[in-house]
Amino acid sequence: MKDQGKAKRGIPSKSEFNSWYPAIVEIADLVDKRYPIKGMDVWKPYGWKAMSLIDSITRLEMESTDHNEYRFPLLVPEDLLEKENRLVAKLKSARELGIDPSELRFEDDDAGFKKEVYWVKHGGDNKLDVPMFLRPTSETPMYNMFSLWIRSHADLPLKTYQIVNTFRYETKQTRSFIRVREIHFFEAHTVHKNEVNATLQIKEDARIVQKILYELCLPNIISKRPIWDTFPGAWYTTAADVIMPNGRTLQVATYHHYRDQWAKSFDISYEDENGNNNYCHQTTFGMSERLLGAVVGVHGDDSGLILPPSISPIQVVIMPVATHISDDVIIYSKKIRDDLHNNGIRTKIDDRNIRPGNKHYHWEIKGVPIRLEIGPKDIAKNQCIVSLRTGGKETLPLDNLSSLILTSLDSISDVLRKRADNLHNNTISQIPKSILDDGRLSFEQPLNDGVVYEMPFDGNDADAEIIEKSSGLTLMGECEQAYEDPMPCIITGKMTTKRQYLAKMY
Amino acid sequence: MKDQGKAKRGIPSKSEFNSWYPAIVEIADLVDKRYPIKGMDVWKPYGWKAMSLIDSITRLEMESTDHNEYRFPLLVPEDLLEKENRLVAKLKSARELGIDPSELRFEDDDAGFKKEVYWVKHGGDNKLDVPMFLRPTSETPMYNMFSLWIRSHADLPLKTYQIVNTFRYETKQTRSFIRVREIHFFEAHTVHKNEVNATLQIKEDARIVQKILYELCLPNIISKRPIWDTFPGAWYTTAADVIMPNGRTLQVATYHHYRDQWAKSFDISYEDENGNNNYCHQTTFGMSERLLGAVVGVHGDDSGLILPPSISPIQVVIMPVATHISDDVIIYSKKIRDDLHNNGIRTKIDDRNIRPGNKHYHWEIKGVPIRLEIGPKDIAKNQCIVSLRTGGKETLPLDNLSSLILTSLDSISDVLRKRADNLHNNTISQIPKSILDDGRLSFEQPLNDGVVYEMPFDGNDADAEIIEKSSGLTLMGECEQAYEDPMPCIITGKMTTKRQYLAKMY
Repeated sequence: MKDQGKAKRGIPSKSEFNSWYPAIVEIADLVDKRYPIKGMDVWKPYGWKAMSLIDSITRLEMESTDHNEYRFPLLVPEDLLEKENRLVAKLKSARELGIDPSELRFEDDDAGFKKEVYWVKHGGDNKLDVPMFLRPTSETPMYNMFSLWIRSHADLPLKTYQIVNTFRYETKQTRSFIRVREIHFFEAHTVHKNEVNATLQIKEDARIVQKILYELCLPNIISKRPIWDTFPGAWYTTAADVIMPNGRTLQVATYHHYRDQWAKSFDISYEDENGNNNYCHQTTFGMSERLLGAVVGVHGDDSGLILPPSISPIQVVIMPVATHISDDVIIYSKKIRDDLHNNGIRTKIDDRNIRPGNKHYHWEIKGVPIRLEIGPKDIAKNQCIVSLRTGGKETLPLDNLSSLILTSLDSISDVLRKRADNLHNNTISQIPKSILDDGRLSFEQPLNDGVVYEMPFDGNDADAEIIEKSSGLTLMGECEQAYEDPMPCIITGKMTTKRQYLAKMY
Repeated sequence: MKDQGKAKRGIPSKSEFNSWYPAIVEIADLVDKRYPIKGMDVWKPYGWKAMSLIDSITRLEMESTDHNEYRFPLLVPEDLLEKENRLVAKLKSARELGIDPSELRFEDDDAGFKKEVYWVKHGGDNKLDVPMFLRPTSETPMYNMFSLWIRSHADLPLKTYQIVNTFRYETKQTRSFIRVREIHFFEAHTVHKNEVNATLQIKEDARIVQKILYELCLPNIISKRPIWDTFPGAWYTTAADVIMPNGRTLQVATYHHYRDQWAKSFDISYEDENGNNNYCHQTTFGMSERLLGAVVGVHGDDSGLILPPSISPIQVVIMPVATHISDDVIIYSKKIRDDLHNNGIRTKIDDRNIRPGNKHYHWEIKGVPIRLEIGPKDIAKNQCIVSLRTGGKETLPLDNLSSLILTSLDSISDVLRKRADNLHNNTISQIPKSILDDGRLSFEQPLNDGVVYEMPFDGNDADAEIIEKSSGLTLMGECEQAYEDPMPCIITGKMTTKRQYLAKMY
């Protein structure tokens, strides 16, 4: 019976993740992909509400760390880019890092950047004097203003953020939430007196990321990206990646220490207590709708979504049973709804006149954490029946129900964390033994699709290239969590505690 | 002393409204206009928070009337416009209204529309196959999807809204919040079974507008726009206009009854209970950041903003006095803040170590409704001193302070409503007697700048043109509030109860 239901709903098995994911985002009515521009989905109310709840968590974290919310224009005039200055800064930073700029693997800033944005060159019938582009991120529009706002040490730190639509002219295959062309984006930009204060900001960002990912029940890998994967203009970039069920990693957050490179390009400086002028140090911190993509991908199952209670638009759906027998059922349902609502629990009564089985399927697909059934027999016993989306059914007394429900919601989050942790740990595998021969690694066992490989690695840029070329996978960078005991680097053989992951990244 | 302070702050007198308004939006730190694209301001945290509070009021109204929040893409492919269909619909609608389409004063849809949007024709280095434009509003992207979503009567009504950035390639002079090129915009779009249901929606919109404008303490004129000022494709357009201190009217909300014109163009139809296929009837309802512009313009004074408590980011600012004398002052300040906060009052302690006079000026400019001072002497008497931004000072006991503060906030709103009402009524004047001669009206007294003229008018399109040409002002359309007793129409002489306003509109 149940399988029949699933088939009817058209949900592929989650073991076929690459078919399951694109299907479920539409079946659960998060987005509609039929909008006639690829990579620009329509957010349906359920998806938008879940995303808004993620935004609310982010805003709360921003407020409690004294960030202020701004809103900068979407359009950026091309001439705002002080190209030469940026280039100079980039080259200089490369030199400071001890790298020959010509060896940098990332594309030239300006060229790469220009290829990735949408251009507005016409207003009405007129050709604009200065072409404008749709922001891919907001360094340029923001820093241009920061240089006007910051004069003295009293203006620092400046901690800003915004949650906006950004755009990328994406030529790769698009995927809802994961790779889109209009991106629902969070970006924090901060300005500090010196490198040390900016470093403290990076630590604050790291804590915020962990708090948010904890709320979303998403275990993650934190790594310092390799230099060639560092955001242009950044001194270093740290990223949080979530392991998806198909073994690919999804970068869901990055935070960048800019040192004073951008400040020098945009002339962001301040007069200190002694009357000296200094360049500021800056950081940025970005997240996006990919957070929702990770939630969908990691937690869902063959029957649909499973939403963590923290962002579930509906946390408890109440199903009145046998309403034709007694009017009390609706009265009690409303009383329960009001009680839960007053205790901050997002609750909805489903009193549609359709078969109970269809209702169950409906809310199962939507991933609502708790289904609460109440009928005349339950009322007689002063109880209700509660089913958890993560499995299990219990009978709860109606007295003090809200606090019992809150406990159940917490237990659902715990189960999700545990399951996701298992997925995370089971997907990671020590890299097979390998032999280095003529600039190529060959592995004793073939590398598997769907596995994230872990290894000790302490080599240089060229060594990294050998690993990536031999494996066809991408190095995620130096993992924050080092090995406890030194191990031999898989290329150089040197003993090292540096842990690195090698994965197929989204 | 006080005047010295004001001069220092650089606030022009409000009697010079056209200098006061652009100055105050920057001095109060709502926006920064120095962004290098005219009409695209940077929202500063204080302005953005006030706007977000307006959005929250709107969202609450939308939720309580069963609208769902969506998010549609910003970019619209040009070919989504089924131009011919739209044109056909427009002509047909003109015919239904009994107008010769060639006489319509509004520009041709497509031509006019194409002149007012920003175009995206390039992604990276590539010329796009299909040019796209930045949405000025979302009829086209939405209705294209509605036609996929609506199949049967069970899908109706569909009540949607979104709060998004929209764009207009504005060639007129820009003004913060009032005439901008990137517009913070609210738009509701609904779909119904028939004309009657759509008409009921228009009535619901009217109630919502009145609720929101009441919260913002903004009296307004409701009129049915003349046909030539009706949104293209609408059967009729109703607008809410606020009278600004310079006598110009500011359109802050419009709601449109579309009948089935758009549905026919976009093929939005449903199967009814009897298996028949019918075109849907639609409405839209729009508001924008102009609401904040009206709040700023109507309520502010020579000392700065005055924000209605409903949208003031800070409702009470606490000023600890003589903190060097007793530590109790800060302890009490925090206790009061926590108490007010727990009662839903947005409260901030200003414990900066600067001169009290400067603090007062600062919060006066920002328009914070209540300033609360507490010092050692007050603590001894278990009291605090409360100053209202609308004038007046009182001593309040600390016991049960929250409820007293809530009462004070309400009284501030009442004062603002009363003042705005006076401005509104004092700006409206009966039109001077006039003589119609050779297709031109001459008035017995010259018309004054800064006055909104009221008159009985029951003429046709050509008569309206005479009035507008003779006065240099714009007809706002038939006012909802008719005259109680019939009066002679100023053109035709026919007795009518139709009240019309003639104004310089923003």
